[in-house]
Amino acid sequence: MDVIVGGGVVGLSLAWRLAREGRPVTLVDPAPASGASHAAAGMLAPVSEVTYTEVPLLRLGVASLRRWPAFAAELAADAGLAGPEALDLRSEGTLDVAFGADDLAALDELAAYLEKLELPVRRLTGRECRRLEPMLAPSVRGGLLAVGDSWVDPRRVTAALLAALDRRGVQLVRARVGELLRDGGRVTGVRLEPPGGDDRRAELRAERVILAAGAWSAGLAEVPVRPVKGQIMRLRSPQPLLTRCVRGTVHGTPVYLVPRGDGELVVGATQEEMGFDTRVTAGGLYELLRDARELVPGVTELEVSDVVAGLRPGTPDNLPLIGPSGTPGLALATGHHRGGVLLAPLTADILLGEEGELAAMCSPGRFRDIS
Amino acid sequence: MDVIVGGGVVGLSLAWRLAREGRPVTLVDPAPASGASHAAAGMLAPVSEVTYTEVPLLRLGVASLRRWPAFAAELAADAGLAGPEALDLRSEGTLDVAFGADDLAALDELAAYLEKLELPVRRLTGRECRRLEPMLAPSVRGGLLAVGDSWVDPRRVTAALLAALDRRGVQLVRARVGELLRDGGRVTGVRLEPPGGDDRRAELRAERVILAAGAWSAGLAEVPVRPVKGQIMRLRSPQPLLTRCVRGTVHGTPVYLVPRGDGELVVGATQEEMGFDTRVTAGGLYELLRDARELVPGVTELEVSDVVAGLRPGTPDNLPLIGPSGTPGLALATGHHRGGVLLAPLTADILLGEEGELAAMCSPGRFRDIS
Repeated sequence: MDVIVGGGVVGLSLAWRLAREGRPVTLVDPAPASGASHAAAGMLAPVSEVTYTEVPLLRLGVASLRRWPAFAAELAADAGLAGPEALDLRSEGTLDVAFGADDLAALDELAAYLEKLELPVRRLTGRECRRLEPMLAPSVRGGLLAVGDSWVDPRRVTAALLAALDRRGVQLVRARVGELLRDGGRVTGVRLEPPGGDDRRAELRAERVILAAGAWSAGLAEVPVRPVKGQIMRLRSPQPLLTRCVRGTVHGTPVYLVPRGDGELVVGATQEEMGFDTRVTAGGLYELLRDARELVPGVTELEVSDVVAGLRPGTPDNLPLIGPSGTPGLALATGHHRGGVLLAPLTADILLGEEGELAAMCSPGRFRDIS
Repeated sequence: MDVIVGGGVVGLSLAWRLAREGRPVTLVDPAPASGASHAAAGMLAPVSEVTYTEVPLLRLGVASLRRWPAFAAELAADAGLAGPEALDLRSEGTLDVAFGADDLAALDELAAYLEKLELPVRRLTGRECRRLEPMLAPSVRGGLLAVGDSWVDPRRVTAALLAALDRRGVQLVRARVGELLRDGGRVTGVRLEPPGGDDRRAELRAERVILAAGAWSAGLAEVPVRPVKGQIMRLRSPQPLLTRCVRGTVHGTPVYLVPRGDGELVVGATQEEMGFDTRVTAGGLYELLRDARELVPGVTELEVSDVVAGLRPGTPDNLPLIGPSGTPGLALATGHHRGGVLLAPLTADILLGEEGELAAMCSPGRFRDIS
């Protein structure tokens, strides 16, 4: 049996895929779908997220984005939903906007670079941007539309995954894993933290433990992940203000706005190296509000419906850790940083052994001393 | 019997005072202590709140502030608290700070004006301000310390009032008043809104109905009050950042910071004419955060623990409406706008007939057509 440690979008997707393959699996999490996946905006935006140094991440993202329509359709069917639209999967693209001459020059360079990679983008004037998105600030001088970029509601996705697991009878253990059980050089299961004053220490034996505990993975094994704090805000409007994702760099900080069909508008996100700190701070909120106003002044009138901080699992090279660790009996599916939702379908394929070259890029073996 | 409609700080204080006098009283509110009193910061700051046109309001405030120490001591005793410090009543004064030359000139004028009224103030340099409050922004160039201004935690005050009422056996009816009962030209009681689908319409008969329903008073009688929306934020710090209330005008907007002994820091407040709208908005939060940062840059690091919007009951002349209305059987204790917490002790005195000249200033009779 496989035991998956961690019920975020990655762990849940893995459990679901394994269950679909008819493989026995148990998932352990004290509070599934409440960590980074709960905070996430759900951008499936490999193209507009790209930077020059991150071609490998771009390739992973593009490969996983291609899997999303089928993943969503199968998940919706398995969860008993009417259809994939119940996950709010949308593909109108991401509009990256520029305010100043420097920003515009950067967009031109990015457009040329993406075209060389044969990725579908369209360079737009400020007027063209506002024709697509009339609520954009008048000061927007140009933009780049990443045509294929998509987005999804991660809270609906994890809820659907939980429903699908339930329908397939997958065991979900709502407990914290205190440590991995080890026998000689091998991982043989997990020990559960006793709740409250209970000192019965339950153990779960496993042929394979898959560590999908995000930023908390480093507490259970020697894994080079660290928490990268992100504060994110949800606004609510009677009608949607935007029809697609909008991004921009304001005061040197990237900010994005993700619209949902029901009028929710997600504003994200800070990136802070603060350790295991999930406080929503005055400074974090201030930056999000300030930058969102610069992009779309009309957000001022919207209700603030939710503010939350999550911890992304960052790695030294910004690529995830997926596959067998150096230790027999232990596999990893962690380190997805900002890409957990996007990369969930690909991560399952890699762990099921379906990907050669892409799997190699994510192999934990690229770091020494994982155990 | 008196029936008081409204369980904010004003209605609760009245009920408590009447009960202490041995007079039968019933208080009706669907959710006591949850409206403007819950949102309020609790500044007892008649001096620093003064403007040139509001000498009557200043006189009311100074008179009520003088009553606060005894009010707090008696309330604490009646509520079974250890002492008035359980209400977090503090009197280190309010520091009004200035950034630019215009602000400084305004502070000089205000100081001269207050000295003429024999109110205790001290004019300070920027350096003196920072000696008192080291977390103040370096750009603060001067200040005015209103020595006698105080503050209190309104949530503790309303909780203590509810406890005191309970200990005195005062009946608290948790229901909404649908309308006033009228017989000929006289108010004879209230009709309660049936909860849910229940169509029993309970009535409460009263010799006198005291309308203390704040911004909602105008829905029950012809009273010139309107809702003035205020958004307010609570931050949390391990140690208090400030030792006294700090106010200032930033970007033309007044902002204040009220510190509590437990590290809470209240940042207030917007003033918006939006009708009965209690949404917390992106624009409201943005202004509070922006202006608080200008006064005390260190707030950036603090956790945001609460954000709420309340509706102050504004009147055409910014003075409350306290005393008999034109209609027999109906008295008013409403229209306290930003001053409900400060004016609660005086309001009770006025309604008990203990104040002559001050009562005349608050008399509903100054407006025609109240009924």
